[in-house]
Amino acid sequence: MTSAEPDAGLLAPGWSGSPVAAATGDRAFLQALLDAEAALTRAQAALGLAPQEAATAVTEAARADRFDVRSLAERARGGGNPVIPLVADLTEAVGAEYGPYVHRGATSQDIMDTAMMLVAERALDPVLADLARTERALARLAAEHRDTAMPGRTLTQHAVPTTFGLKAAGWRSLVLDARDRVTPVRNSLPAQLGGAAGTLAAFTAYGAADPTALLASFARETGLDAPPLPWHTLRTPVADLAGCLAFTAGALGKVAADVLTLSRTEIAELAEGSGGGSSAMPHKANPVRSTLVAAAARRAPQLAATLYGSLVAEDERPAGAWHAEWEPLRDLLRLVGGAARDAAELTEGLRVHADAMREHLDLTHGLVVSERLSAELAPVLGRARAKELLTDLAGRTYAEGRSLRELLAEQPELKDVDLDELTDPARYTGSAGVLTDRALERR
Amino acid sequence: MTSAEPDAGLLAPGWSGSPVAAATGDRAFLQALLDAEAALTRAQAALGLAPQEAATAVTEAARADRFDVRSLAERARGGGNPVIPLVADLTEAVGAEYGPYVHRGATSQDIMDTAMMLVAERALDPVLADLARTERALARLAAEHRDTAMPGRTLTQHAVPTTFGLKAAGWRSLVLDARDRVTPVRNSLPAQLGGAAGTLAAFTAYGAADPTALLASFARETGLDAPPLPWHTLRTPVADLAGCLAFTAGALGKVAADVLTLSRTEIAELAEGSGGGSSAMPHKANPVRSTLVAAAARRAPQLAATLYGSLVAEDERPAGAWHAEWEPLRDLLRLVGGAARDAAELTEGLRVHADAMREHLDLTHGLVVSERLSAELAPVLGRARAKELLTDLAGRTYAEGRSLRELLAEQPELKDVDLDELTDPARYTGSAGVLTDRALERR
Amino acid sequence: MTSAEPDAGLLAPGWSGSPVAAATGDRAFLQALLDAEAALTRAQAALGLAPQEAATAVTEAARADRFDVRSLAERARGGGNPVIPLVADLTEAVGAEYGPYVHRGATSQDIMDTAMMLVAERALDPVLADLARTERALARLAAEHRDTAMPGRTLTQHAVPTTFGLKAAGWRSLVLDARDRVTPVRNSLPAQLGGAAGTLAAFTAYGAADPTALLASFARETGLDAPPLPWHTLRTPVADLAGCLAFTAGALGKVAADVLTLSRTEIAELAEGSGGGSSAMPHKANPVRSTLVAAAARRAPQLAATLYGSLVAEDERPAGAWHAEWEPLRDLLRLVGGAARDAAELTEGLRVHADAMREHLDLTHGLVVSERLSAELAPVLGRARAKELLTDLAGRTYAEGRSLRELLAEQPELKDVDLDELTDPARYTGSAGVLTDRALERR
Amino acid sequence: MTSAEPDAGLLAPGWSGSPVAAATGDRAFLQALLDAEAALTRAQAALGLAPQEAATAVTEAARADRFDVRSLAERARGGGNPVIPLVADLTEAVGAEYGPYVHRGATSQDIMDTAMMLVAERALDPVLADLARTERALARLAAEHRDTAMPGRTLTQHAVPTTFGLKAAGWRSLVLDARDRVTPVRNSLPAQLGGAAGTLAAFTAYGAADPTALLASFARETGLDAPPLPWHTLRTPVADLAGCLAFTAGALGKVAADVLTLSRTEIAELAEGSGGGSSAMPHKANPVRSTLVAAAARRAPQLAATLYGSLVAEDERPAGAWHAEWEPLRDLLRLVGGAARDAAELTEGLRVHADAMREHLDLTHGLVVSERLSAELAPVLGRARAKELLTDLAGRTYAEGRSLRELLAEQPELKDVDLDELTDPARYTGSAGVLTDRALERR
Repeated sequence: MTSAEPDAGLLAPGWSGSPVAAATGDRAFLQALLDAEAALTRAQAALGLAPQEAATAVTEAARADRFDVRSLAERARGGGNPVIPLVADLTEAVGAEYGPYVHRGATSQDIMDTAMMLVAERALDPVLADLARTERALARLAAEHRDTAMPGRTLTQHAVPTTFGLKAAGWRSLVLDARDRVTPVRNSLPAQLGGAAGTLAAFTAYGAADPTALLASFARETGLDAPPLPWHTLRTPVADLAGCLAFTAGALGKVAADVLTLSRTEIAELAEGSGGGSSAMPHKANPVRSTLVAAAARRAPQLAATLYGSLVAEDERPAGAWHAEWEPLRDLLRLVGGAARDAAELTEGLRVHADAMREHLDLTHGLVVSERLSAELAPVLGRARAKELLTDLAGRTYAEGRSLRELLAEQPELKDVDLDELTDPARYTGSAGVLTDRALERR
Repeated sequence: MTSAEPDAGLLAPGWSGSPVAAATGDRAFLQALLDAEAALTRAQAALGLAPQEAATAVTEAARADRFDVRSLAERARGGGNPVIPLVADLTEAVGAEYGPYVHRGATSQDIMDTAMMLVAERALDPVLADLARTERALARLAAEHRDTAMPGRTLTQHAVPTTFGLKAAGWRSLVLDARDRVTPVRNSLPAQLGGAAGTLAAFTAYGAADPTALLASFARETGLDAPPLPWHTLRTPVADLAGCLAFTAGALGKVAADVLTLSRTEIAELAEGSGGGSSAMPHKANPVRSTLVAAAARRAPQLAATLYGSLVAEDERPAGAWHAEWEPLRDLLRLVGGAARDAAELTEGLRVHADAMREHLDLTHGLVVSERLSAELAPVLGRARAKELLTDLAGRTYAEGRSLRELLAEQPELKDVDLDELTDPARYTGSAGVLTDRALERR
Repeated sequence: MTSAEPDAGLLAPGWSGSPVAAATGDRAFLQALLDAEAALTRAQAALGLAPQEAATAVTEAARADRFDVRSLAERARGGGNPVIPLVADLTEAVGAEYGPYVHRGATSQDIMDTAMMLVAERALDPVLADLARTERALARLAAEHRDTAMPGRTLTQHAVPTTFGLKAAGWRSLVLDARDRVTPVRNSLPAQLGGAAGTLAAFTAYGAADPTALLASFARETGLDAPPLPWHTLRTPVADLAGCLAFTAGALGKVAADVLTLSRTEIAELAEGSGGGSSAMPHKANPVRSTLVAAAARRAPQLAATLYGSLVAEDERPAGAWHAEWEPLRDLLRLVGGAARDAAELTEGLRVHADAMREHLDLTHGLVVSERLSAELAPVLGRARAKELLTDLAGRTYAEGRSLRELLAEQPELKDVDLDELTDPARYTGSAGVLTDRALERR
Repeated sequence: MTSAEPDAGLLAPGWSGSPVAAATGDRAFLQALLDAEAALTRAQAALGLAPQEAATAVTEAARADRFDVRSLAERARGGGNPVIPLVADLTEAVGAEYGPYVHRGATSQDIMDTAMMLVAERALDPVLADLARTERALARLAAEHRDTAMPGRTLTQHAVPTTFGLKAAGWRSLVLDARDRVTPVRNSLPAQLGGAAGTLAAFTAYGAADPTALLASFARETGLDAPPLPWHTLRTPVADLAGCLAFTAGALGKVAADVLTLSRTEIAELAEGSGGGSSAMPHKANPVRSTLVAAAARRAPQLAATLYGSLVAEDERPAGAWHAEWEPLRDLLRLVGGAARDAAELTEGLRVHADAMREHLDLTHGLVVSERLSAELAPVLGRARAKELLTDLAGRTYAEGRSLRELLAEQPELKDVDLDELTDPARYTGSAGVLTDRALERR
């Protein structure tokens, strides 16, 4: 039988090898656990609750490469979390003199939660960087294609013209919405410190006059925010992460869905810069980046649902709800981190075939502007006659394979109408340009 | 066979009869659709695009009680949404002269989305009011029980003492977190106006010099925000509602989970003010309010997941993702509305049995303060001896059925230690009081 | 303020007006509750535990149109379920003499669960009928288009040819898989009877020598199966419904996804028989049936997740998990019922444009058969030369706008090769025909 | 920055180190991919489509320990799946002569899907073994405690007595339901073989007279079932796995929920054999096995929802739906594998405190049998008088702190009634024993 070797990301082409993968791996999580332990001892030293030498000793010992991740993982089973064996190993590594200052007064959850926030913070930085790249690429595309007309599609059918500029500006607005939801969450991730049941009592027993000062000191040492209350079962930070990550996955998923549609062989208005190959068909250029983003977007909402569900955490530490957060939160960070990287590459490399967009505007024989004709011919012909005429001609376009423009030109009653203007799809893009300009003003 | 009579809430004791039920019913939704249509004609009249009389006529006709909801529902099937038949009926109700100004230039989604935002706004007001009631009740409980000691429980077991004040303050902080997530969403719900494919083109065809002015005017008439872009497939407002509603359900679900646990027959530290009866056992007083809140909290995350999933909305109007939003968003509003009402009643009527809490602190024969003893006896006895002694005595408490206090008192080496102080669980609540005070300062 | 009028399905064009809507409405559910009560009294009478007249009296009184659904819904709030007020009203309706035999020995959950199973049974019959219609329509399409070649598409790109027959046969196999998952569940839905805590004790107190005989008798009277154990917190029947309904929604969702893709303006290989209109663009024929099926398929998995989650039902009746089942199970039945109706109409009316399919096979200039050429030219030219030649010509097809067939014909080394055979996409459909035949043998 | 080292299960105490972990790791998945490739060449050799030496060469080369998992994972990014780089590496490993027979005619999905089924099959064997262990432990507990009376609890409150035997028998019936849902799925997992678009066309091009024979031969070589059709976008096997795994997680979650409740410090009717420690409180014995099972049960439904959602797979290979299956399916296998192991240990080691159960039956001062008294005193006293008396005495039990038994004994009108029988909770367990016996007959 195969051994229980760790995963390398074989099933995860979306995030394997990404900066987020490095920031969320077991080794990175272990380092975050150790960072939390070291910060705790330093915070106690800063308040005179531990010797400075203890702080130094713990900080020096707290290097992930000195610990055996797999052994910790296996020993985590007994108590249900990896902090218990880690405290044992770290205490031993620190040595007899200062070992007693390791984890003093803390509970496993203080360390796990703080580590999770550190990991989230470290993982969100590349996410935000990739969102910024994506946003810039989309701003460029929107500006460049401000007036590139293309079919607007609703319920899969051509409706009226729009522009690729407006589409790209809309994508960008979603990416900015994602940034604006992720950023405040990333910037206020709190440290966790409450002791056994969130009262900070043990710190008093160990001599702290005001344990809430320790909470502030600990937060400072970790670089995280000081929370108003220990949040062992007040899981707002996790739920907020769930929400902004599910949002980001969905926002990028919208971009991917559009690229996938517009890359179809029959449509080919867009193409990924470097399509992925196929093991069977060497000529294929698959939209792989979009595909992987789309896959992430399919999974993220349900992972977020699990995290929202864990808000229902009974007592001072729940039996299950907390444990159910760890992997889904990491999975969400990874999926979104991978999707952000793919979205950046996708939008930076996107090829736009403006000619195909223009050609497709004629696929409905001109009916793509029928809305305009209804509106503008009514004053000329009377509402009833205008409607009758358009219905008649619409039927004939398909039956006779002729364009609406041609058929209208045969109508004597329209001889004074500027049919070139009225029937040109590229002149019926409404406020698309103005809306694009306006959207691009957002920073 | 039974007829297709509308639902009255028979399966929904959680929200049936609530203000949110009234604000989200089909009739209320129909009114919101009509409000949107009337606002559109008024907005056009304000810009000189329609006669003022048309605006008046449409506004007067737009009363939900004049329309046949069931007929609209059935005719909605053809085009997949109720706006198409509604426009027909409203046009007819307005009459021949001003009928042409109904829905002019708009698309169904403009009206549906605007109506959904109006319904959300109207539903969130009672939600916020009930969250405020809940918050006040919890503030009172937290203040009143600032020093009521009780067992802190982790993984179902007594850990160290805490206070009911801190627990109630924690609940309150979640309720305030919910308020702080719902309020900005409620206050920035946008109107929707884009026309067939989001370019506002038809409004130009009908004479608007600057359709974006119409967007602003329309938003003003509806009382909603003007969006930066038409958001037919940029579903940020719906995702934001999903997030804040799932959060609120979870926050209230945490309160319910604790009340359910602490109401158990064996624990009975809390009781709902008016327990629900049983059809089989007349003596039972079930925690029905908590039960219904808990049920809502189980459902909300998955409904939110569906809405987050609908961010992936292809093209200028998607074939399915949009339609998949309507019922889940309403369901979420209802569940949260019902849960907020139940939470208000629950917390306002909650009975706290401080004596039971105090008694339970002795259930572990004093081991609930073993953490403190470990910390404070180490300097007295030496770390090793302290640990040895406590391990020995802990075993004896259960074996001999005696309290740790008694056994410690027999130890000559501890004759100078203030055992009353050290072993009183009520004196080992750490910073619970300070944390409670601090949490109550939040408004 | 708007009143709390019941919903008529305004937001549910998918299922509004369907047979499943009628079978699952509040009135239908009320009738099922009453059917359960009447069956219980009859079952007791059959075993001599109640007078035959009581059974007759309860059965006669148990007509849903005699009860006030809305009042029941509102009074359900007190105890958290509608059975408590219903028992009061039914007892009164039966009268003083036989009223005491109403609900004797039962608990609310016995009646609710039995009613839910009755409603599920009644709702699944039209579902199965519509799946059967769909399957027949697909069998016809598959047979008719057994040899209609079309592009096989992978990751949105043309890959190699396939046939519409094979596609339709695949759809049909999913529909049969759905039928084969729904049918055994529908045919083994169990009645529920356990009394207050699932021990049947009250029935003994009321004189039953062997209450398990009552369980069997009750099941017989309801037409449902007798369960091996009371299943108040053994929710296998609900989970099984969740699974088969989520499966069915997904199976139909696959059909809808393909129809939506192949109906796109640029592709137009398929069209719904009667497309839905648009409020803004009279020429549009939207694939509305597919859209509504797709919307149902987006929602069903998360509803099923809630039901699977309710397997975790603590004690002898849970505080929330059970209550969280009622609406989601009904929602699932409705969504699947509506989707099955739409799928039947969709497949019966589907228009297949075989000519468009054939034309599209040439969109890649013949590269759609490059896989075949790689395989069959290698023995002729040597593997290396074949690969080199094809890579070269593939590049030229796009650059020169010429077909692979033309370019190959210019190669002297291929003068003996039957290029007509080798390059005709319609002759490279592999085993599509055989697989279609085989799939159609399944009944 | 930390490196991208693979995960070792640090966040997964539930499944880390389990047999399922070994069966589902990247190395195991790689072996399954290689097994699929080797089976394909062997199947072709068996039909004369490849030299027997090629089959031998590929089979010998297909050993996972010869390949670099991490490199494959990173190169998987280009085409979006790991088969593309794997085919390159395997071809090279096989060598120039027989390399061309590697992956001949297949598509990446053939190999991925087949490997996923192999992994599922291998992972389900320990799951089924652990379910069998769990079932046996529960059978023993149910038999042993057939008559151990305990409070039946509904909505958290004592209702009427039940037995621990019936509870354990109910748990066992859920475990058997899980087994009965997993077993047929495990025994019919199909191989996948369709070629580029599911027509098997390439195999014809490579000389197969009847590629469906190859499908059968390939299935035989893998040990999996031969599917009726290639199922690239007919995802029944994956959905069936999702359903049975979500069911199993929920079934075990019910057991865990009950154990968690009954292990509470105040209840303590059950205890895990070896409770987990705490980093802060040495005296605690946490129900860790139940906690980890509960955590798995919270996550599984949403993972299953993602898989059910992937039924909606457009075209002949979808752009995202397929890729979204890989990690969630593996996660589900792992969660259920870990939960089954934990459930086995939990039930085998469970300590039952029958004395605590018995004591708790008196917590309601005898009201736990009020249902029985209502039923049995009515014939003695008349219905009205019986009800009046019981209501009166129920109030007095709590007010006076006396038992119902005592108060009833003071009533002269009851002097001939056998109060010992009527008020003994242990004699009011109804059919619990008979139901337990019946349930234990199921094998």
